[in-house]
Amino acid sequence: MSRAAVDDVDLLAIKTLKFLAIDAIEAANSGHPGLPLGAADLTWLLFSRYLRHNPKDPHWIDRDRFLLSPGHGSMLLYAMLHLAGYDLSLDELKRFRQWGSKTPGHPEVHLTPGVEVTTGPLGQGFANAVGMALASKMADARFSGLFNHRIWAIVSDGDVMEGIAYEAASMAGHLGLGNLTLIYDDNKITLDGAIDEAFSEDVARRFEACGWRTLSIDGHNHAQILAAYELAASTHDKPTLILARTVIGQGAPTKAGSHKVHGEPLGKNETLAMRRALGWPEDATFVVPEAVRARAEALAASRTAAYDAWQGHCRTWRAEHPAEAAQLDAMLRREVPDALLDQCVAAAPSQTDATRSLGGAIEQRIAALMPSLVGGDADLGGSTKTVIAGSAKVLRGHFEGRNLRFGIREHAMGAVANGMALYGMFIPFTATFLTFSDYMRPAIRLAALSELPVVHVFTHDSIFLGEDGPTHQSIEHVAALRLIPNVHVWRPADAIECAAAWASAAARRDGPSELIFSRQKVDALPGGAERAALAARGGYVLSHEPDGRAPDLVIIATGSEVGLALEAARALSANGRAVRVVSMPCVERFAAQDDAYQHAVLPAEGRRVSIEAGRTDLWHRWVGRDGLALGVDRFGASAPARVLAEKYGLTAPQIVARITDWLNTPSR
Amino acid sequence: MSRAAVDDVDLLAIKTLKFLAIDAIEAANSGHPGLPLGAADLTWLLFSRYLRHNPKDPHWIDRDRFLLSPGHGSMLLYAMLHLAGYDLSLDELKRFRQWGSKTPGHPEVHLTPGVEVTTGPLGQGFANAVGMALASKMADARFSGLFNHRIWAIVSDGDVMEGIAYEAASMAGHLGLGNLTLIYDDNKITLDGAIDEAFSEDVARRFEACGWRTLSIDGHNHAQILAAYELAASTHDKPTLILARTVIGQGAPTKAGSHKVHGEPLGKNETLAMRRALGWPEDATFVVPEAVRARAEALAASRTAAYDAWQGHCRTWRAEHPAEAAQLDAMLRREVPDALLDQCVAAAPSQTDATRSLGGAIEQRIAALMPSLVGGDADLGGSTKTVIAGSAKVLRGHFEGRNLRFGIREHAMGAVANGMALYGMFIPFTATFLTFSDYMRPAIRLAALSELPVVHVFTHDSIFLGEDGPTHQSIEHVAALRLIPNVHVWRPADAIECAAAWASAAARRDGPSELIFSRQKVDALPGGAERAALAARGGYVLSHEPDGRAPDLVIIATGSEVGLALEAARALSANGRAVRVVSMPCVERFAAQDDAYQHAVLPAEGRRVSIEAGRTDLWHRWVGRDGLALGVDRFGASAPARVLAEKYGLTAPQIVARITDWLNTPSR
Repeated sequence: MSRAAVDDVDLLAIKTLKFLAIDAIEAANSGHPGLPLGAADLTWLLFSRYLRHNPKDPHWIDRDRFLLSPGHGSMLLYAMLHLAGYDLSLDELKRFRQWGSKTPGHPEVHLTPGVEVTTGPLGQGFANAVGMALASKMADARFSGLFNHRIWAIVSDGDVMEGIAYEAASMAGHLGLGNLTLIYDDNKITLDGAIDEAFSEDVARRFEACGWRTLSIDGHNHAQILAAYELAASTHDKPTLILARTVIGQGAPTKAGSHKVHGEPLGKNETLAMRRALGWPEDATFVVPEAVRARAEALAASRTAAYDAWQGHCRTWRAEHPAEAAQLDAMLRREVPDALLDQCVAAAPSQTDATRSLGGAIEQRIAALMPSLVGGDADLGGSTKTVIAGSAKVLRGHFEGRNLRFGIREHAMGAVANGMALYGMFIPFTATFLTFSDYMRPAIRLAALSELPVVHVFTHDSIFLGEDGPTHQSIEHVAALRLIPNVHVWRPADAIECAAAWASAAARRDGPSELIFSRQKVDALPGGAERAALAARGGYVLSHEPDGRAPDLVIIATGSEVGLALEAARALSANGRAVRVVSMPCVERFAAQDDAYQHAVLPAEGRRVSIEAGRTDLWHRWVGRDGLALGVDRFGASAPARVLAEKYGLTAPQIVARITDWLNTPSR
Repeated sequence: MSRAAVDDVDLLAIKTLKFLAIDAIEAANSGHPGLPLGAADLTWLLFSRYLRHNPKDPHWIDRDRFLLSPGHGSMLLYAMLHLAGYDLSLDELKRFRQWGSKTPGHPEVHLTPGVEVTTGPLGQGFANAVGMALASKMADARFSGLFNHRIWAIVSDGDVMEGIAYEAASMAGHLGLGNLTLIYDDNKITLDGAIDEAFSEDVARRFEACGWRTLSIDGHNHAQILAAYELAASTHDKPTLILARTVIGQGAPTKAGSHKVHGEPLGKNETLAMRRALGWPEDATFVVPEAVRARAEALAASRTAAYDAWQGHCRTWRAEHPAEAAQLDAMLRREVPDALLDQCVAAAPSQTDATRSLGGAIEQRIAALMPSLVGGDADLGGSTKTVIAGSAKVLRGHFEGRNLRFGIREHAMGAVANGMALYGMFIPFTATFLTFSDYMRPAIRLAALSELPVVHVFTHDSIFLGEDGPTHQSIEHVAALRLIPNVHVWRPADAIECAAAWASAAARRDGPSELIFSRQKVDALPGGAERAALAARGGYVLSHEPDGRAPDLVIIATGSEVGLALEAARALSANGRAVRVVSMPCVERFAAQDDAYQHAVLPAEGRRVSIEAGRTDLWHRWVGRDGLALGVDRFGASAPARVLAEKYGLTAPQIVARITDWLNTPSR
């Protein structure tokens, strides 16, 4: 079977994809038929001719990756994965969008074999593909001669309009990611109607300006599709965008080409008319013609040869490159070095310094121990202190380094890091100022939802960054990050806690960690390395009330305010109060401890105060509705940090006075 | 004085701008000298030759707007405003970055005369400028013949790299905003070094692909600068990007052209060397030569003629267009219609429906009453129900309508709306699904910080959107929005509460309102129009405990869970409990009520429960640490809504069982 010859069985297979999608959407009475119908040609011809994969080993490390960035077209992907031989039965297709199925409304990685990435929020998948292509280049640079795969993705009008996609495209073009091919399903229709009411740019020219090769084709013309794939597959110097002009909902007799087909089931009448028009059985659903099944099985079988050949090649490579092979295995296993926490503690500087600098020093140790750690910043490396010493920058044609220059593209940084994590070998980190976490938030959410091992470093974490003022001073960001499910937010108070935070983040396999660091200097807290294991539990008693007394006051603090809490506690203790100070660098980790531990740290006795230089709202979970939550609930201001401390009531004497006043006021 | 002739006094004025900036940054020992030095030529020539303004009337409605998108270069703007004659004294310049000064680290609108917008987070100012240009076109379409101004902005490398700037540029090109000129300070240097390590695209070509005119010049060549301004000022069919190649820190003897000059004071030695090199007084700071002062005063005086002429023109226009003049005044005063809340209540549908539909019906009434209300959606108008009926779409060459098609550009949508609000006449609204509020978050924060009257409509507000699954189901978003200072988050439970929410949002002048609506239907709650005024207070007693008893249980709920709370309360009351139900559509408004009102709604008696289909964390502020906060603290799933209700324990019987169990467990 020649790649270029398209026969009747191919045509039948394309129809099969379309009707599997339609039947599933009708059964669910929910879904998006437009894309599956419009992009079935593109998808079948890619999977049947070009995609390097083995449905029996979906995690094969030398597979091509295929992403469907417009995740609402999920049924096209599910139908294709089913035909291709992935472990996704017809029964699962019949349970589209139902509880517990492998076929949710939008594709979810880890849930469905062959689904490489969770997509839905537009633009994310586009940038994930760039991240995968970058990871692939970096893997190839490390393990030269082992890999021979590419990254393919379908992207939609909506993806192309999102700013994150522009950022990612600019980055991909800059780096010359020639292993990346994006297929733009250019159907000119969005949910609300014709795209030309909102969008009229010359997309090809825009991508060319960003260093891409572009190919414009008729997305239903098979010869053109295959020629474009051939050109793309032989391109190595720059990423390729195939602009495939398609008709949304192609095949639907009255709704094709209209926005009515984008996001709602076709309905009974239109489906029946479509069956008649395309000569499809009217009395059966979820039909896979025998010829199509046979062709699909033949294709799957034909994959085995390439797969087996690579396995042989890999054995040879391993024998010739034992050190690289060991590194590769460690990276694939996401191996955590022995006694990582101890190693981090050993690397923790003892001097008074900003936690960004203390964290940076510990990161160097982790980078030395874990070759999987790679990352970079959004043009703030000098400020975030995250550049890996002794390692090169990743630049066009030079992918052996570990330091990424994301540019001033925070959103793409987040999603590219997600793509790199999804690729399966690297633990990527990102870095910028905390206030810009807002720019990355959709990507952070997807890292959490997709359970990706990504580390986000955020520095300049409060009003105490000083003169840059309210646009740059985080007030709500720490709390807002804590709200995203499955995120660990660390705000360490000194070098020991930085060690616990970095060690936990580097070892975490099932979700992102946010490392929140200060711009200003903090003193080392009392107690040495033995505190690290306690800090790793998320919260611990830093300073006890006098022996034999129950605490009448428990002060909980994080980050740069822990020192303040200690100072306040000393003054309050001098007045005869039994004060306990709890440091809580990671609320999520503390909340995951057993009741006994939590209770030991936060006993029933004593009124509670929290101190954190940010929004106080979340602290009432711990201090109660009548507890005193000290922090910053309004925007910051431009002034030196010491002035701000005074103006916002966060000097030690002010804290003591505020707590004393409050203790003297009966709770109601 | 010819526009095109640049004389010695101009050169001296440019030097004055540079040294005022340097002196202020040195005095503060903090700031960014690179941009002020590099863009002083561009700024002086714009202000002295092209900017239509009157420093004595900074709010003149026919003024040109000038924005400095890279707000870190604020000292250039302050120096220029000082010279131009705005109410910004040399003493204020000397207090750069100090508490209480009018010269904060980044420019803040409302704080400093002549500062049009708060900038700092990169890309935002770029998109704000697009919003202003759009608002200007829409104002011109309504009040034809009255206006003759343009929008100018300096943008930086960082702006141009941000995705939001691409989105805004694509929108501006699409709409043909010929009244917009952006001056790109193309200095090839970012904080961390040479931009070409991260960025290599053909910027001119990219903007041309988006429908822009581009002009490439030497940003220090005065003849080229003036020729570009002349071309831009005579362009009307498309926006213009002037790519001005500059040397960052120009004039600094050893640091010019290097990233070292971006974000740190030059230091004593470099400053002295620069004074010597440029022939500036060594023994004095904050020097304004007499000739420069005289020229600046002459320029300010020359502005008066155009200003006075326009005032005369305006009087004539008013006489000839009394109806338009009345509308204009109402819009400028941000006039709120009489009895707006009652009007909204009268428009509230009585049937069971989704709050997105109920809210949409009320929005129609407000749109009829308030011509200032304009807005649109990110390609989801059919789902968000926000399109203003009977009004046209805003399209290229057609700016008389009120319905904006933002395209799938959520981030630009937020920032363009901010620019429209800053323009001073419109109350813009935006609309998309709640989960995509994350894409808009940096713009929402700036709306809050800048105290802008913007309404953000977010629909599909919980897991109960059903089959689209976890990527589209908001869990943390309502809570995360509540954390931003100065934001009002409304999550109404029925049509009456929708009326209160919309009325409050439309009347608010000092910050944004988030209107959170359901996809699924809700029943009308008991009690009619009289509830509206209570709902407007943010929280109120919807259902009382039996007379003569203190409540032993207070259930607080919002949005679609209020009906659930009522149902649960009925069941619990039947078991003899004294149950009160509090509806709290806007926590921020409730928290702003006096203690007596809060106490009347939430008495000391009774244990407390909250029900909201989202993160529970924030509710402990109201229910206490031992209160029961029912909600959703993990990601959602793809399934029909009724299945999800069961799986997440949010059916009425489950709620009753969970509350009963909890009541039977002693608190500790």
